[in-house]
Amino acid sequence: MKENNQVSVPVIKRLPRYHRYLEELKKMGVVRISSKELSVRMGLTASQIRQDFNCFGGFGQQGYGYNIEQLYNEIGNILGINNKSKAILIGAGNLGHAIATHLNFQNKGFELISIFDNNPEVVGTTVGGLVVLNSNDLEEFCKKEKPDIAILCIPAEYAAENADKLVSLGIKGFWNFTQYDLVHRYENIAVENVHLGDSLMTLCYQINEIDKGVEG
Amino acid sequence: MKENNQVSVPVIKRLPRYHRYLEELKKMGVVRISSKELSVRMGLTASQIRQDFNCFGGFGQQGYGYNIEQLYNEIGNILGINNKSKAILIGAGNLGHAIATHLNFQNKGFELISIFDNNPEVVGTTVGGLVVLNSNDLEEFCKKEKPDIAILCIPAEYAAENADKLVSLGIKGFWNFTQYDLVHRYENIAVENVHLGDSLMTLCYQINEIDKGVEG
Repeated sequence: MKENNQVSVPVIKRLPRYHRYLEELKKMGVVRISSKELSVRMGLTASQIRQDFNCFGGFGQQGYGYNIEQLYNEIGNILGINNKSKAILIGAGNLGHAIATHLNFQNKGFELISIFDNNPEVVGTTVGGLVVLNSNDLEEFCKKEKPDIAILCIPAEYAAENADKLVSLGIKGFWNFTQYDLVHRYENIAVENVHLGDSLMTLCYQINEIDKGVEG
Repeated sequence: MKENNQVSVPVIKRLPRYHRYLEELKKMGVVRISSKELSVRMGLTASQIRQDFNCFGGFGQQGYGYNIEQLYNEIGNILGINNKSKAILIGAGNLGHAIATHLNFQNKGFELISIFDNNPEVVGTTVGGLVVLNSNDLEEFCKKEKPDIAILCIPAEYAAENADKLVSLGIKGFWNFTQYDLVHRYENIAVENVHLGDSLMTLCYQINEIDKGVEG
């Protein structure tokens, strides 16, 4: 699939959203949808949608709209969600616990194969069907199981040190829930940051703007 | 603060990140920083940083760099994090539980004042120091306490219905953890979506691209 090597990051970022909408439409039994209808649902322009899909070679037929099942599968293929990369989770605190139990990794391209923590009270307990392992065993585990990504649910001050170690053990990507920005630390390592605090502050700004509008 | 009415969304989105970096620098005892130094730390260009700060009227002095304490406080003021808007959390499952206990709402502009759930086994339990209330009491509660935002940690299929009800009860914004996109549903309602599944799929794409690079 050489043609999508040049796809821009904003397009890539929209693909999971398309995938999510198409899944919903599929569940509702819809078979075809026009870029216009899809655009109304998603709050994008129809031309934006056509442009995005053209990056991957189309999928649509002029005047007939898009076949939802086909489009859904194609986008899934582009995202690579059928490859089932191996994920490990570092830090089984409240957030790690929620991540492990709340999300369906399987249909997002991953298999959560293990959870690590350094708290003796947590090690040995079961979280989301997995026994929490001791962080001391991480090295041996990685050499044997070769996980692809690590989910970091640890305090920010341990993020850099842990990430360095994990990269040295062959980890190729991070789903980073720490406040620490890993993006610019490594080359050729994938990073998705989920900065919940930043999101909350952005909401704070929006709320205050609304309040100003009301009061002004 | 009329001058920031025209600030673009990308700039706003960067403010929490600046705030986070400046907090870190403050903790380390750093007093001043140049846009160049800050740019290296944050992976932005120095000119980008100067442009961003100019949107709010500067803060810097040519050749002297930025006073970190002052810049930190100013950005906090722009974000409005000292206003302490009232937040309620809907859905005390794994994710809601993690949100309630993991995050420091106070320094992000909010006070979490209550948690609601409709599961009789959860109602009455204590989560993050708050007793979980019955969703049936939501209406009365909102009329009395006038919360500003609701954090949605409920299944996607209940999102629209719950959001409609909350808007009718005076809620002005959502921190939306459901898969349902609330963005285009209301006018003049603030929405921050945290689509964890989308983030995970984006990471999946990146990992597969790295793998292709290695194999190709």
